[in-house]
Formats: sequence, C-alpha cells, structure tokens
Amino acid sequence: MSKRVFNFCAGPAALPEAVLQTAQAELLDWQGKGLSVMEMSHRSDEFVGIAERAEQDLRDLLAVPSDYKVLFLQGGASQQFAQIPLNLLGEGGSADYIDTGIWSRKAIEEASRYGHVNVAASAKGYDYFAIPGQNEWQLSADAAYVHYTPNETIGGLEFNWIPDVGDKPLVADMSSTILSRPLDVSRFGLIYAGAQKNIGPSGLVVVIIREDLLGKAHSRCPTMLDYSVAAANGSMYNTPPTFAWYLSGLIFQWLREQGGLEAMQRINDAKQRKLYAAIDASELYTNPINVADRSWMNVPFRLADDRLDKPFLAGAEERGLLNLKGHRSVGGMRASIYNAVPEAAVDALVAYMAEFEKQHG
Amino acid sequence: MSKRVFNFCAGPAALPEAVLQTAQAELLDWQGKGLSVMEMSHRSDEFVGIAERAEQDLRDLLAVPSDYKVLFLQGGASQQFAQIPLNLLGEGGSADYIDTGIWSRKAIEEASRYGHVNVAASAKGYDYFAIPGQNEWQLSADAAYVHYTPNETIGGLEFNWIPDVGDKPLVADMSSTILSRPLDVSRFGLIYAGAQKNIGPSGLVVVIIREDLLGKAHSRCPTMLDYSVAAANGSMYNTPPTFAWYLSGLIFQWLREQGGLEAMQRINDAKQRKLYAAIDASELYTNPINVADRSWMNVPFRLADDRLDKPFLAGAEERGLLNLKGHRSVGGMRASIYNAVPEAAVDALVAYMAEFEKQHG
Repeated sequence: MSKRVFNFCAGPAALPEAVLQTAQAELLDWQGKGLSVMEMSHRSDEFVGIAERAEQDLRDLLAVPSDYKVLFLQGGASQQFAQIPLNLLGEGGSADYIDTGIWSRKAIEEASRYGHVNVAASAKGYDYFAIPGQNEWQLSADAAYVHYTPNETIGGLEFNWIPDVGDKPLVADMSSTILSRPLDVSRFGLIYAGAQKNIGPSGLVVVIIREDLLGKAHSRCPTMLDYSVAAANGSMYNTPPTFAWYLSGLIFQWLREQGGLEAMQRINDAKQRKLYAAIDASELYTNPINVADRSWMNVPFRLADDRLDKPFLAGAEERGLLNLKGHRSVGGMRASIYNAVPEAAVDALVAYMAEFEKQHG
Repeated sequence: MSKRVFNFCAGPAALPEAVLQTAQAELLDWQGKGLSVMEMSHRSDEFVGIAERAEQDLRDLLAVPSDYKVLFLQGGASQQFAQIPLNLLGEGGSADYIDTGIWSRKAIEEASRYGHVNVAASAKGYDYFAIPGQNEWQLSADAAYVHYTPNETIGGLEFNWIPDVGDKPLVADMSSTILSRPLDVSRFGLIYAGAQKNIGPSGLVVVIIREDLLGKAHSRCPTMLDYSVAAANGSMYNTPPTFAWYLSGLIFQWLREQGGLEAMQRINDAKQRKLYAAIDASELYTNPINVADRSWMNVPFRLADDRLDKPFLAGAEERGLLNLKGHRSVGGMRASIYNAVPEAAVDALVAYMAEFEKQHG
C-alpha cells in the first residue's frame, strides 16, 4: 500500500485518515450487524441512531440553539441558490445580496430568477481583493433576507466578522468555512454548507434554519426543496444520502475528539499563519488579498513568473503534495487547508516552497 | 467479524459483497494514488475516468441508444416527481399518468402542482392487485408525455409489458426494476431510477433521457433541476455525489462479470419463481397480486393469521434473514430480491417459510 498523500484539494477534499479507517473497518459489517451502513433501511433503528447522533454532535459542536432545525439535504450549495429564494422570497419579493466573488455571484444570478435582487455591496471596486466594510453597504428596507458568502473558496476572501443586518434574516453560504472555528449561530437566519470541504463526502448539504423561517415556501416550490417538508420529516421525506450522512457523523465525532471547534480554531490559525508568513516572506510567491480579509481555508498564491507554475506543481506532486493548482478561472496556485489537512501538510508545503524558491528564485 | 446476513430490504438494499470488498480495499488509497475516491476532485483525471467508465458500462448493460443522455443526479425519484413536469410540461401543459399504486400516486400529486394531470388509467378498480390493460387506458391527445411506474415497490405490482403510447414520450420510474433484466430503452422518452435498489447506494438518481426532450425546462425551473444543464455539463454542473457514482460503477462492472442483464434475468426469474411457488403451495402464506402482474423484485406476502407476524419475523432474524417486514402502509411481509440478493438468500427464506409453516400452520 502506498503512502497517503497530502491533499490540498478545494473539494471534494481531504478526510481525516482515522475516519476513513473506521469506515473501512465497518464497511461490510457495521458493529456486528452483518451489513454495511449503505445497505440499511434509512428507517431502521440502526440508521436512525446514526443519523440522530450525527445531528446531535453537529449541534453540540456549533452550539446550535434549540429554535433552529438542522437539515441533511442533497443537491449541494448550488441547489440552495434556488432553494433559498423559493423558500424565503415569497411571490415577487426582494432580497439583499453581497457580492464578494464567484460563488456569491452565482447565488445572485440564480436568486434573480425568482424575485428582485439588490446587490447591497460588492467587492468589485476592490478587484475582489478586499471585503467592503459594512459602512459601504446599501441594505434595502423591504429585503426578505440578506445573503452573503463568508468565505469565497476560489478568491480566497473571507469575512472575519459577522454582518449586522438588524432584524433581517442573515443567510450565509458557509460551504468552505463551517466548523473551522466556533460560530455564533444565533446571528443567522439560515446557514448552508455543501459537505465536501469541512463536513464529509460530496452529495450532502447541511442547512441550519431558524424555525420562524419555515413554512414560507413558494406555492410551486418542489416538495423536495421545501425546508418545512424536510424539517417535518427529519430530513427523511424520501431516502437520504445515508452513507454521506454516516461519514459526516464520524467526522463530527472526530472533531469532538480533537477538542471541538476551539481546538480547530487554534490549529487552523497556526496553519494559515505559517502559510501566509511563508508567502509574505518570499520574493517568489504573492497573495493579493487584503490581509484582514484573507481566507483561513483557501489560500491562493501566484509565482512571480507563470512559467514556473508547471515545474512547481510537478515538484509538489513528486513530494506527495497534491491538488495545488489554482481554480481555472483565476490561475496560479491554491492550497485548501481544511480541518482534515494536518499541520504537517502545511509544514511540508512551506518547506517545499522554500526549497523551490531557492532553486528557481 | 460476524457473518453477513441475507438482507431483503426494499431500499437502501443489499449490495454485492464483492463490490463492498473492492470498495473496502481501496477506501484509503484508490489504485495506489494515496487518497480515497471521496477525497478526489470531481474534475480530476482519476475521477472523470471513474465517472465515464460507469456511464459507459451502464450504457453497455442497457444498450442505451446514442441519442440518449445518461445523467447522474441527486434528490432521488421524489425530486424527479417535480423535475419531470418542470422540464417537460411547459407552462400550463398537460400529461397522462397511470395510477398503479403508492409511488405513481406520489408522482401524480407532485405533477398536479405544475399543470394538468389526466389519470389515464388506474389500478384502483382492481384494489391495486392488477394492472389495467392498455385497452382500458384513456390517453389524451394533448399530453406532453405519459408517465407510469413499471414496478410498484410497496404494492409488488409490475408491468411485464411496455405500454404503446404512439409518438408521446413514455416516462418511467424504474427505481426498483432497472437492471433486473434487458430493456428496450428506445421505447422510452425518459427513464429515472433512484440508485438505492438495483444501482448503488442512496443519494444518487440516474436519468436516461432522449436528447430531443432537452432544452424545454420551465423558465423558473431551478438551474440544478434543468436536465439540459446537467447534460451540457456531464452531470458536473456542481460537485456530484462522487462516492455513490463510483460505487454504482463497481456494481455495473459486477453486473457485466455476472454475464450482463440476460444472465440477471435468468437468475432473477429463478428467484421469483421459487418464492412465489413457495407462497402459492402453502396454506399459510398468500400474495394477492394477479399472477401476470407480480413483481420480480418486491414480493409482498401475508400470513393467514396476523398474530404470527411477530414470531415469523423474530425467527427470520435469528436465521440472518433481515428486513422482511412489509411497508407500514400495507402490513404483512415483503421480500425484496434485487440483483444483489443471491439465490441462496431466497433458498434460505423458502426453507425457513416451510419450517415455520410446519410449526405454526
């Protein structure tokens, strides 16, 4: 068996090795029951126990208040881009959206098909290298909610603060930042996150929704996209993605064993400090993002000369440092350093970057 | 490690042991690449290779004509109940539906929210114990398509013929019968099937759609629910359920190794004959379905005295025969004998049924 690589993929992303080992050990025979989790009825006592424990562990990790529902759904964040207006906008309603990059613009584009979108602030004026301060936001009085993207996975831009939107429901795409540190869920109306970065495998999206936002779906919202139907059925209106739910549950247990989100915050902070310090101290690598708005999870960087990209990536791969190529829309490099990417991976990357700079700088 | 049980669950259902063993062996390290399939970018060469091979194997198994797209989507068959009218009905359009049981009625209910549904035939007059012959169908001239449910998973009612609907697109929910035997795909406009019965794990739904039916989505159909968007992006408009797709691919390879769908037809025919013969020969067990319309995959049966249900199930469980309890809406027993349920499982069940009847008959 070959050595496991260090995987800097933006998603589907690295998973904790200990979690994969548990899943492997019980793949044909879960806890002596003689069958795989994948072969269990979603309504069996065994699977319902797995599902409920996963929800409770996630609630504990994030200290989710009791007036919020936690939903385990399908379709990823992209399906949420439609599902949110279909559930919250009403007929011909209006919402405020903040544009900080590619993912927030995708959310804006889809929401515009269901009602009026007011782009209350945009990072465009900063070339998407900085987040507009709240003093620049033009929130509208009649918005049904305010949507933003706390972390832009491609741009590498992250809010280190939670917007104050008064009594409007704040809606956040936390796909690439959820569980990276503690969060005050009570500040939000709705949080959603595709699983394949910090939660588990792809094919699952977690929605945390304040209960007073349920029951407002548009009359033609597909039943499967109505949050209140999912909430009333414990996310089992139909067969859920059982294996992804189970594996996410193993990750929640692993996070608790690491010491919860306070511990992850310390580790993730150390990881991002090391990587940005290495970039900032070098003559070869640059990160364009305003220092206060740099993402902890997705660190894009460029080499001074594009012609060095290929040898850099080839050398990285030789050393077992995988998936460092930046998103095709922006080029350069990107290191995604989610919870499951250990500090040792960042150490190995930083050492390689120094070695490469010495050779090519 | 305990013995693997015989699992008669209606879904999520049994998976071939050989497939689970392969998945287990490469769970942490796929083909020496040092990472799990779950950790691969869906746009990596490795995963694209896995995805394309899965699609090709499915096309080969079903001899899918080249003018059909094969899509790997999320949300299960229940999401298709909305997605089909959103894509095919147009604004205020009309469609014909055939009512043969609980699942077709769910499809009817959801479609009715998007246009006019003409129930062209119903098994209600037969207490859902027989399928109305085509001479009883009242198809309408203006239907955009004709929808039916070739196999009713709960009722245990199955079409052994393909309806003739002229030049209307025939749409079929094949969740619990796909891949159980050869199929003439060219007779259909659209076939859909939730994976968790005969395809793979839950969280995946396969759609096979004739290309001329693409590009007709309603203006407010969510982008993620538009078949033409999925088709144009190779089912990767956003991150697909990669592990479920991979595992389904392993099952398609396994089916090819078994000899393809002709071989599965022989095996499945033998399995269903044995089980129905045991029921029909007994004084204790009954199946109410018209013999010509009996399901090969889902075999419901009742004991002459309901008070024997509990001891029957307890004795079955002691012998490693699991999930024989019928659906809560109909009671009694149900044995789902999908592709991955071996003939030995049916033999063990038939032997137990005889033993139980001797003791309690």
